[in-house]
Amino acid sequence: MGKGAGVGRPRASGAAANRPDARQAVLDAAGELFTGAGYAATTTRAIAERAGLRQASLYYHFPAKEDILAALLAETVRPSLALAARLVAGSAPVEVRLWALAYADIGLLGGARHNLGALYLLPEVGSPNLARFRAERADLKAAYGKLVAAAGIAPEAVATRTDLVFGLVESIAVTRRDNPSLDVEAHIREGADGVVRLVGLAEPTEELRAAAHTLLATLPD
Amino acid sequence: MGKGAGVGRPRASGAAANRPDARQAVLDAAGELFTGAGYAATTTRAIAERAGLRQASLYYHFPAKEDILAALLAETVRPSLALAARLVAGSAPVEVRLWALAYADIGLLGGARHNLGALYLLPEVGSPNLARFRAERADLKAAYGKLVAAAGIAPEAVATRTDLVFGLVESIAVTRRDNPSLDVEAHIREGADGVVRLVGLAEPTEELRAAAHTLLATLPD
Repeated sequence: MGKGAGVGRPRASGAAANRPDARQAVLDAAGELFTGAGYAATTTRAIAERAGLRQASLYYHFPAKEDILAALLAETVRPSLALAARLVAGSAPVEVRLWALAYADIGLLGGARHNLGALYLLPEVGSPNLARFRAERADLKAAYGKLVAAAGIAPEAVATRTDLVFGLVESIAVTRRDNPSLDVEAHIREGADGVVRLVGLAEPTEELRAAAHTLLATLPD
Repeated sequence: MGKGAGVGRPRASGAAANRPDARQAVLDAAGELFTGAGYAATTTRAIAERAGLRQASLYYHFPAKEDILAALLAETVRPSLALAARLVAGSAPVEVRLWALAYADIGLLGGARHNLGALYLLPEVGSPNLARFRAERADLKAAYGKLVAAAGIAPEAVATRTDLVFGLVESIAVTRRDNPSLDVEAHIREGADGVVRLVGLAEPTEELRAAAHTLLATLPD
């Protein structure tokens, strides 16, 4: 790849590590390469070249390749986790809160430029550098569990039902991989409907969806 | 790993490639290593050592590492595909056939010794060597689609609903990875219930589950 480094992308200057967008350029390049060629097959050198940076500049932001993976995966859960905390504490009907969380969360995974959810099954996700991602993802799942419990599922059935709900939400990654021309917006809406059905709540209606959209638009920060 | 090759496992003799169980020994070893250390990090040498075979004997059965992956992944869809064909052609109520297929399919993925469904998102699944696996998995999904359509889902909604059903079924791989001490049997039963709920059929009952078990036990070959 070295010979192609100067083609198509600006070559980094010595000060490139301080470019305001350098960190984001690394994440964009890594997201593309990790989901395309694969995590193991992607070197930090290839990421730096794709980002238009020197490898030393990349290391300034990310000391190890796993740190880049951790930063990418954090983006796939952190916004949903913040939303989930507000929804769990909220007072709207539980089916509205559950639909809203699933809609936003599937939207985050399904609408991201790169299909980062496809990286969740990497063995590297078990490594110490990814501990924070694992904890945040577990917290997000626990928030779904609170809504599942609030929906009236028997206490002994909450854990398994939450596994299924969370599995359905995250399955957007496999669906995107299988069908790159997927109608993502339809899938997000149907996926949120599916979560409500899976929990055994009443069949989703246009009123439910409208209430959930209003809730998402008006939640206090 | 070379130094440990003689420890704990019988070292292969020259005739090992012809051992009746050599092929299966390679698959067992590869299943363990691919789902543990990861596909990219596992060499055919390490697989041969774990299987108690010479590397040449491994190549006799599998010319390339991707051929081992293809054989492993075939095991995760082929039995379900054969069952699905019989269920699609059958005449039992659609909710019974759908519950039976989901139960058997989640059981195949969830009950296998190694969590092979965790390999579905590998970039190597897109390679030419895996074309047959991709085709068989697509055929299995299409069979779910026929049952979803038979359940009365509007024609324009069948594809998305089938994506969700298939995603829910395959999500057992992530759930197993997250929780190695999972109550797999409960998850399989609840997953099959979840598929029926997701399709919008009547809430699953003990009668439905019993009818599906009877159907699975009495299907002609």
